[in-house]
Amino acid sequence: MPYGNSAQTDLLIVGAGPAGLMLAAWACQYDIRFRVIDNKATRVGTGHADGLASRTLEIFDSFGLVHDILKDAYRINEICSWNPDPDRPDRIKRTQRAKSQPHGLSRYPQSILNQGSIEQILLDYVKAKAGVEVERNTSPQTLDVDEAACDDEDAYPIVLTLKTHDEGQDEHHTTVNAKYVVGCDGAHSWVRRQLGIAMEGDVTNRHFGVMDIVVLTNFPDVRQSCVIHSKSGSVMTVPREGRLLRLYVQFAETKQGEPFDRKSVTPQAILEKARPMFEPYTLDFRICDWQSVYTIGQRVAKQFSYKNRVFLCGDAVHTHSPTMGQGMNVSMQDAYNLGWKLGSVLEGTAKREILSTYNDERRPVAQELIDLDRRMSDFYSQGPSENSSKYAAFRDSFSWFLSGVSVAYGPCQLVAAVADDHADNNNAAAGTALRDGANGTVHLNEDSNRIASRPGLATGLTIGRRIAPCNIVCQAEANVVLLSDKLPSNGRWRVVVFAGDLTSSSQWDTVKELGCALESICRIYTRSPKDLHSVVEVILIHSGTHDSFTLLDLHDIYHPDNGDEGWDYWKVYSDDAAALSVGEQSTAYKQYGVDEKAGCVVVLRPDQHVAYIGLILDDKALDRFFAGNLRPVKRVTNVTQPAAS
Amino acid sequence: MPYGNSAQTDLLIVGAGPAGLMLAAWACQYDIRFRVIDNKATRVGTGHADGLASRTLEIFDSFGLVHDILKDAYRINEICSWNPDPDRPDRIKRTQRAKSQPHGLSRYPQSILNQGSIEQILLDYVKAKAGVEVERNTSPQTLDVDEAACDDEDAYPIVLTLKTHDEGQDEHHTTVNAKYVVGCDGAHSWVRRQLGIAMEGDVTNRHFGVMDIVVLTNFPDVRQSCVIHSKSGSVMTVPREGRLLRLYVQFAETKQGEPFDRKSVTPQAILEKARPMFEPYTLDFRICDWQSVYTIGQRVAKQFSYKNRVFLCGDAVHTHSPTMGQGMNVSMQDAYNLGWKLGSVLEGTAKREILSTYNDERRPVAQELIDLDRRMSDFYSQGPSENSSKYAAFRDSFSWFLSGVSVAYGPCQLVAAVADDHADNNNAAAGTALRDGANGTVHLNEDSNRIASRPGLATGLTIGRRIAPCNIVCQAEANVVLLSDKLPSNGRWRVVVFAGDLTSSSQWDTVKELGCALESICRIYTRSPKDLHSVVEVILIHSGTHDSFTLLDLHDIYHPDNGDEGWDYWKVYSDDAAALSVGEQSTAYKQYGVDEKAGCVVVLRPDQHVAYIGLILDDKALDRFFAGNLRPVKRVTNVTQPAAS
Repeated sequence: MPYGNSAQTDLLIVGAGPAGLMLAAWACQYDIRFRVIDNKATRVGTGHADGLASRTLEIFDSFGLVHDILKDAYRINEICSWNPDPDRPDRIKRTQRAKSQPHGLSRYPQSILNQGSIEQILLDYVKAKAGVEVERNTSPQTLDVDEAACDDEDAYPIVLTLKTHDEGQDEHHTTVNAKYVVGCDGAHSWVRRQLGIAMEGDVTNRHFGVMDIVVLTNFPDVRQSCVIHSKSGSVMTVPREGRLLRLYVQFAETKQGEPFDRKSVTPQAILEKARPMFEPYTLDFRICDWQSVYTIGQRVAKQFSYKNRVFLCGDAVHTHSPTMGQGMNVSMQDAYNLGWKLGSVLEGTAKREILSTYNDERRPVAQELIDLDRRMSDFYSQGPSENSSKYAAFRDSFSWFLSGVSVAYGPCQLVAAVADDHADNNNAAAGTALRDGANGTVHLNEDSNRIASRPGLATGLTIGRRIAPCNIVCQAEANVVLLSDKLPSNGRWRVVVFAGDLTSSSQWDTVKELGCALESICRIYTRSPKDLHSVVEVILIHSGTHDSFTLLDLHDIYHPDNGDEGWDYWKVYSDDAAALSVGEQSTAYKQYGVDEKAGCVVVLRPDQHVAYIGLILDDKALDRFFAGNLRPVKRVTNVTQPAAS
Repeated sequence: MPYGNSAQTDLLIVGAGPAGLMLAAWACQYDIRFRVIDNKATRVGTGHADGLASRTLEIFDSFGLVHDILKDAYRINEICSWNPDPDRPDRIKRTQRAKSQPHGLSRYPQSILNQGSIEQILLDYVKAKAGVEVERNTSPQTLDVDEAACDDEDAYPIVLTLKTHDEGQDEHHTTVNAKYVVGCDGAHSWVRRQLGIAMEGDVTNRHFGVMDIVVLTNFPDVRQSCVIHSKSGSVMTVPREGRLLRLYVQFAETKQGEPFDRKSVTPQAILEKARPMFEPYTLDFRICDWQSVYTIGQRVAKQFSYKNRVFLCGDAVHTHSPTMGQGMNVSMQDAYNLGWKLGSVLEGTAKREILSTYNDERRPVAQELIDLDRRMSDFYSQGPSENSSKYAAFRDSFSWFLSGVSVAYGPCQLVAAVADDHADNNNAAAGTALRDGANGTVHLNEDSNRIASRPGLATGLTIGRRIAPCNIVCQAEANVVLLSDKLPSNGRWRVVVFAGDLTSSSQWDTVKELGCALESICRIYTRSPKDLHSVVEVILIHSGTHDSFTLLDLHDIYHPDNGDEGWDYWKVYSDDAAALSVGEQSTAYKQYGVDEKAGCVVVLRPDQHVAYIGLILDDKALDRFFAGNLRPVKRVTNVTQPAAS
């Protein structure tokens, strides 16, 4: 723990669960000092969360970690719905097999892996990348914010005292001054309580028993995720790695005010409760890996941040039932939204004002989660129903949210609104977003000096939503690559130049002019004069074949000169995947709905969300967009953190 | 080095290059004692071999290591051919772009990664899996074989003295008694020389300069592999990870007997030689990572083994030019062929006689390699030609061999010949193998008690060749998986039951009867009564949908009872991938040419090569096949090696 005794830190992360560690993974990408504290002695072992949505896996992929997860994860492709057999209502019968989610939403299926493995993958990453380890047995005791200093970029306005309890030793107390603090400290968040931020919503009196067992049964769908509605109650089953099966068993409903003895929910008690629900099939176990009890409730915090200095992620600001398998996902996605904003502000490459978008972008997602969760937990609590007998249709109404790939942010400072002269497109795009429900409650922040997007130039993209992966061909290497592999989470913004038809000399000239403008933008914001693309990276995708022109004839910004290392050959791609026999996938221009002659320009945020769509000719809009969000970097750094590996 | 001082070892591997380490990867799969010694102080750093054929990547995949390679490797998709420009013969001009290999040969493309990285991946694997580290600075001094004891299974008939030179210390000598020794000690193999085995073939007087540089050039195809024939000589270029470019530059041809000053082949000298070959393009570098010189020659050892106690792999038995990028591949494939045979004989599950198949199977491959290499090195040495101007067609005549996936072994003890009543099929299959050139020189060993295959039952498979991957659906989990992922290199033989149409009650009964026979086979040969599948594993693939019957209704051998862990749900698959929207891939039955009603039985060796194809009804043939190769295991083990992780 190199900074265990540092009195000053740029970023203090309270809580080393999935949200806190995801934030730490982002912090590794920046030249900043950060610490992670956790009040527990170890990471999670058995049990806890296990659902991984497609978008979460895409995020792990962007850190190069997805294979570590997929090699052990269980993939949910199909869900079986069981209901009372009409002929023998005391027995269950399979009524439907439902697809987990529509094909093509993501490269990654909905998957299942225990929380402990996910935490370990992130712990290993953060240690290897930045040399930072979690400071365990450490909890904050006091938190004070010097409000007068909150707008001073060089200040450390937050003072915390920390208590550390070493095993077999006395407690000791230290003080830390932080520029930013993020509370990822769970449903009973200490940080949230210090800020006096209230949770809104209710807790019900419905209790579910949960356990991970190595099951012994003749139930035929034991290795598929199942939704079981029996006359005796409902069960949700989730197969896991290592032969484990997670059971969520409807256990009891208490009266208002009546106490519930959670200790009574033993594995054996859950088994006894579940057995009649599985009739006519047997149910037993000899190995129980973990057991818990959930009382259904839905609550969301009134605000997710305080003075843009203290932030809250995950369970600290939203709690709900486990029935959608979303908890760990939305928590990590909160942190994924926040991490690059904090990193770039701390490093001095972005304006402090962007931090307010965290609350504006993530609170509506949490509200949506809560609303859907209420529907889903009712579905489990209210017995066999129209929805349980037509489960596939019921599930379809959730899958866009469950996958995590449909969330669309903005419009806001970081996501350029739609141009007035494209009002129709505006309505169409907003309609899409609203229909998907992801940003229905986002309010337009009218006071920002905002530029306008033209979504009609890329009808396959949604402004504010993450860009879907697509096969493209590296111009220099003639290899098929995924665009998403070129968008790792390293803090860079990307200007993706859909250059159109470069065999047209007028288009060639236009793209060359854009190159001049882009070079100027890259030069203003770069962190390093040796790497013009270090903050704003330019990627070019043209619509022709990969042998239709010579790469080095393009403007230098499309193949930067890296000195002794020669040209950078990995910025230019062609929409030529079909020619390289990769099969039936649609081409990039078709998939993104971009005109193959005229092209367009798309700006992607460091989190791969579409920030702006515009004309190639309109480089002034790019100037204004980046001027509104980024800052020319001060070239002197006083950070003494050792170089990351 | 837990066994560094052990006087007895089951297997001593001499040389820790790619071949030796591949052998060690196999050794980890068995409960045997093995040591690896190497006379050098460290693994290879820069340079050396770098080509990885598709089959080699499949092999790494079978050990779970392919992602470690692919994340850094360069993939060769297309090769550019350059020849003198007819209008300006002193300049070169691109004449063709050739596909590296036909689409669909393998899931993995031809790739490039430096030898040091590959060695490191294997070193890490062997250490993690078996706790074995290479004993460095250690070379054998004497080797004696007690020929009288060679047929005694319990004997350690080989005695070696080893010299170890610790840094800053004196040399010390130790003696080791080994059951088996494998020389993976390179072109100047000490082990081969002790055995008095001669190399046959010639060395030419043609010298190529080789170097890895970070190139500075305006040559447009710098990031593609190129074949350049200029008026000034020929160059082969191979891009690599980390911006490196490998150049093979035709350097000099000396007269017979004339000495060649290899020291004159400096990086600067290679650059000067290459520059006119690249005209009109510039060529320079400031970083040279590695440099060497190759003198073209083709030689192969007269035999690959001695008394079936000492074996030779890789460069120790075949040397050739680097022009096909095959050296590291064929070397590792030698070891991959040998490793499971040695492991299973040492563990007592296979008969010692199978060891003679190593020489019979691999020497013809080496001979083929040598013959092709002669053609390919002539192509580079003899200037612009018909072949260089029509490079794509020329390359096509090599690609089946280059990919490594077309090698077909046998017929031999381990590969059941074709039945006489299928003479037509016999000729057809043999014709395929011969046309591919892989086993043209294998002689039928007439004295073995051999069973007959019926290749007509699986027309998409070739007897003796590795089975190609195919998507199948896990019956229990409704997930699409690759058959190859179910065939890891863990030492198990597989009986793949293509069960046909299980909705037919007669077929159901037939498959049930086969289940009884298979249970008996599994029980005879298993290493552990708790895991019937530990030596012969049964996998069932039926042609119906994944919901067409209940898995537990099948014979138990298709879903073994694992006690407290319940049933094993991962042995039964359906040919239902299309239903799960995986796209246009052909189904398993179509791809393998198996009748969807009647099915067939295919036996796969531990190295995934097809050993036998027969009728479901003919379980007697399976009895005989396994009785010919395997041994019931003695249940008492006197091996004290600590448990592998």
